[in-house]
Amino acid sequence: MSEHMTPEEFRAHGKRVVDWIADYLTRVESYPVRSPSRPGEVRAALPGHPPEHGEPFDAVLADLEHTILPGVTHWQHPSFFAYFPCSSSGPGILGDLLSAGLGVQGMVWATSPACTELETVVVDWLAELLGLPTGFRTDSAGGGVIQDSASSASLVALLAALHRASGGKIATEGITGRYTVYVSSQTHSSLEKAGRIVGIGSNNVRVVEADPDTLAMDPAQLRALIGADVAAGAVPAMVCATVGTTSTTAIDPVAALGEVCREYGAWLHVDAAYAGVAAVCPELRWINEGVHEYADSYVTNPHKWLLTNFDCTVLWLADREPMIDALAILPEYLRNSATESGEVIDYRDWQVPLGRRFRALKLWSVLRWYGAEGLRAHIRRGVALAAEFADLVRADADFALLEHHPLGLVCFRPRWPGLSDADAGAATMAVLERLNDSGELYLSHTKVRGEVWLRLAIGGPATERGHVLDALAAIRRFTRAVRDGRS
Amino acid sequence: MSEHMTPEEFRAHGKRVVDWIADYLTRVESYPVRSPSRPGEVRAALPGHPPEHGEPFDAVLADLEHTILPGVTHWQHPSFFAYFPCSSSGPGILGDLLSAGLGVQGMVWATSPACTELETVVVDWLAELLGLPTGFRTDSAGGGVIQDSASSASLVALLAALHRASGGKIATEGITGRYTVYVSSQTHSSLEKAGRIVGIGSNNVRVVEADPDTLAMDPAQLRALIGADVAAGAVPAMVCATVGTTSTTAIDPVAALGEVCREYGAWLHVDAAYAGVAAVCPELRWINEGVHEYADSYVTNPHKWLLTNFDCTVLWLADREPMIDALAILPEYLRNSATESGEVIDYRDWQVPLGRRFRALKLWSVLRWYGAEGLRAHIRRGVALAAEFADLVRADADFALLEHHPLGLVCFRPRWPGLSDADAGAATMAVLERLNDSGELYLSHTKVRGEVWLRLAIGGPATERGHVLDALAAIRRFTRAVRDGRS
Repeated sequence: MSEHMTPEEFRAHGKRVVDWIADYLTRVESYPVRSPSRPGEVRAALPGHPPEHGEPFDAVLADLEHTILPGVTHWQHPSFFAYFPCSSSGPGILGDLLSAGLGVQGMVWATSPACTELETVVVDWLAELLGLPTGFRTDSAGGGVIQDSASSASLVALLAALHRASGGKIATEGITGRYTVYVSSQTHSSLEKAGRIVGIGSNNVRVVEADPDTLAMDPAQLRALIGADVAAGAVPAMVCATVGTTSTTAIDPVAALGEVCREYGAWLHVDAAYAGVAAVCPELRWINEGVHEYADSYVTNPHKWLLTNFDCTVLWLADREPMIDALAILPEYLRNSATESGEVIDYRDWQVPLGRRFRALKLWSVLRWYGAEGLRAHIRRGVALAAEFADLVRADADFALLEHHPLGLVCFRPRWPGLSDADAGAATMAVLERLNDSGELYLSHTKVRGEVWLRLAIGGPATERGHVLDALAAIRRFTRAVRDGRS
Repeated sequence: MSEHMTPEEFRAHGKRVVDWIADYLTRVESYPVRSPSRPGEVRAALPGHPPEHGEPFDAVLADLEHTILPGVTHWQHPSFFAYFPCSSSGPGILGDLLSAGLGVQGMVWATSPACTELETVVVDWLAELLGLPTGFRTDSAGGGVIQDSASSASLVALLAALHRASGGKIATEGITGRYTVYVSSQTHSSLEKAGRIVGIGSNNVRVVEADPDTLAMDPAQLRALIGADVAAGAVPAMVCATVGTTSTTAIDPVAALGEVCREYGAWLHVDAAYAGVAAVCPELRWINEGVHEYADSYVTNPHKWLLTNFDCTVLWLADREPMIDALAILPEYLRNSATESGEVIDYRDWQVPLGRRFRALKLWSVLRWYGAEGLRAHIRRGVALAAEFADLVRADADFALLEHHPLGLVCFRPRWPGLSDADAGAATMAVLERLNDSGELYLSHTKVRGEVWLRLAIGGPATERGHVLDALAAIRRFTRAVRDGRS
């Protein structure tokens, strides 16, 4: 019969795992960034049936090395420039390990007071670090909470917005009228997904046109669309402004959109999933212009650019009541005197799931290890490297640059003189495929005004100037190869 | 300026954290089970502002020990008998650590093939271990997926059910008619929460009466209620059957409820959050009677009784299409050849959030360390200890026992001759308060037929016979104290 792992066995195996991770982080650059694994390859290498008898932990580590690792895309590789970074860090990993070790479930305050109270402290700290409104702090009517992702946070914001817009009716009666939500063509797909989940449907997630130059939501178009919808009987529940879109880090005019929200009583949600943490640098706080005056909710992801391993999203609200009213249900077995006293926060009412991990530990570890100055230095390095890369691309006649790159993302594309847009797009995708197949680096792409652009996102802690210069060299090399192949 | 933690620094600090956890697990029994912390105490002991300068990691560990730990309720304490266990284990912690170390984001197959494929393998393995339908395996029309909680999994099941019931209309048009969901008075509150979230409202989460003896959902009542609702124009989208309710581990008659679902075309979701993993023992598979023939979806939590740290819920579906249709949205930047080939699974379409951690690693570590026989031994120990505890309570004239205790939960209460139900309930709650205040053990309570009952849930790996006997001794002692105090 297999036995439980004793604390002493855990001590020994745990140190081997720590060594394995330290070695992994040391050698991560030696792997192809994007896994070359083909569909089904990892699965085929694993047993078709579960083991009947227990196995030593070393067998897990051996299979991790030989079977799993070849199927891993190395998000911590210094030449990972795809999507947005999901930057891990030593203190983040260790904070997560402490959370796993304590094994605490913090669904309500009473099930582990420190899990709730440390979370309150670190989200308040982060609001201060980012210069967010004091109304977002927990000693006001608002407050912050850690979620697993910006998708979930935006869903919670939408539920609060619908609750407010319906005067609480939706919680009991469900959706009985037409409620609308406003996004731009550049808004993250999670907002449409949230619209489906809450039962208003994609049709009522109304897409406002973006300015063709800035790719920011056009307040005049928003006003016109809301006006028409209201005239047709719809209730405008929420507008989602994005600070730093996924595609190009476009920044919506929060204040101007907020004015429209006020006119129509709509909730203003600000999705700053990627960009929000950049506000740790005072010189970048302009990205949040209008947030203080107008935002009902705001979300950013320390797990993207702030060195805290996934998952760690923070959602703040200016008024926590509609959210709690929308989500709170108190079954008998969770009744307790602390909850009834009203003196404590029960974060289960601030999220979709009931259970919650002690995620505050990793954010706490990161904020303390780096301090405000360390976090600012990290963001500034990323911004400077992106600016340098953009300068080099701009100076190269073979490439076009999207001039808007205020943060760590640069969008650019090879020029294909004489090719149609469609052929140029295919050629750019061919370059991307060769780049990513090479394993030297990993980029992603987007479409802007019908053209395919490459996205290079800088932000991992291991990425240095040399990696960015090497990336440009590889991009030039593979662009030439595609060009030569076509001629 | 604070620097990133180097791999060598990580190696050193990581080993100190492993030592800290090993020591914690060794001494966990020395702490009061439930934290004696008062509201605001932890928060007041932490700095009001974030640090400007980075701090050594040892400072985090020191504060963890002195400031955080007194506010922690020790879920891994062998005398933690409250709620359901959230049992961690060495291999589970180490699997989570590996996930944090790799820092992979597995939103689609292409962003890390192994993250998706190992998940497919382990959920298929678990379906086999639990004797679940082969139609739940990924090589059929169905499949399994890891979620953060049973709440989220039931929400996903409900979205799939609504999609099917509306012929896909809800995804685009939203909710335009009356859709109903059926639960019993004993169903977990997450189903009502899910009903609110999807926009049908609490009023349309219809509560079927439970049999007063078994506390199981009454199929005749279900049929009557659905029939009346349908006659009134409602579309019955889903019935949630529970295998092992939170309150008393009551088991709904899945087959009989499934028959009603077939009559009305409703989706049958089976919530076996706590109890489902017990089916790893063949002699306990009777709990899933009817699942093979009737279940459209099924959820259980390895993070409750199967030694995998929170969060690790597994949701299976007999047909994955309606779920994917309800949730899939493909933005440009996530387009990739693997997705377009149709050969791979993109689990982002099987859940609410977009991002996902590499949670399969911890379930894999647990299944391999224990093997099937180790998992069966763990469940059997818990069932045997619960049976022994129940026998002792039954033999004690001072206590009443709820005779239904097929698994690790035993419900019982002191007898209070001569007291009204209300006074008896207050006296039982006074016993509970004293027990939990003592720090010796931690129980929770429920209400059954208007009476207050104490819940003793066994399932943590550290809990041995002595802890259960000590618990009974403490319960007797504090019951006497309350009785003496009243007379």
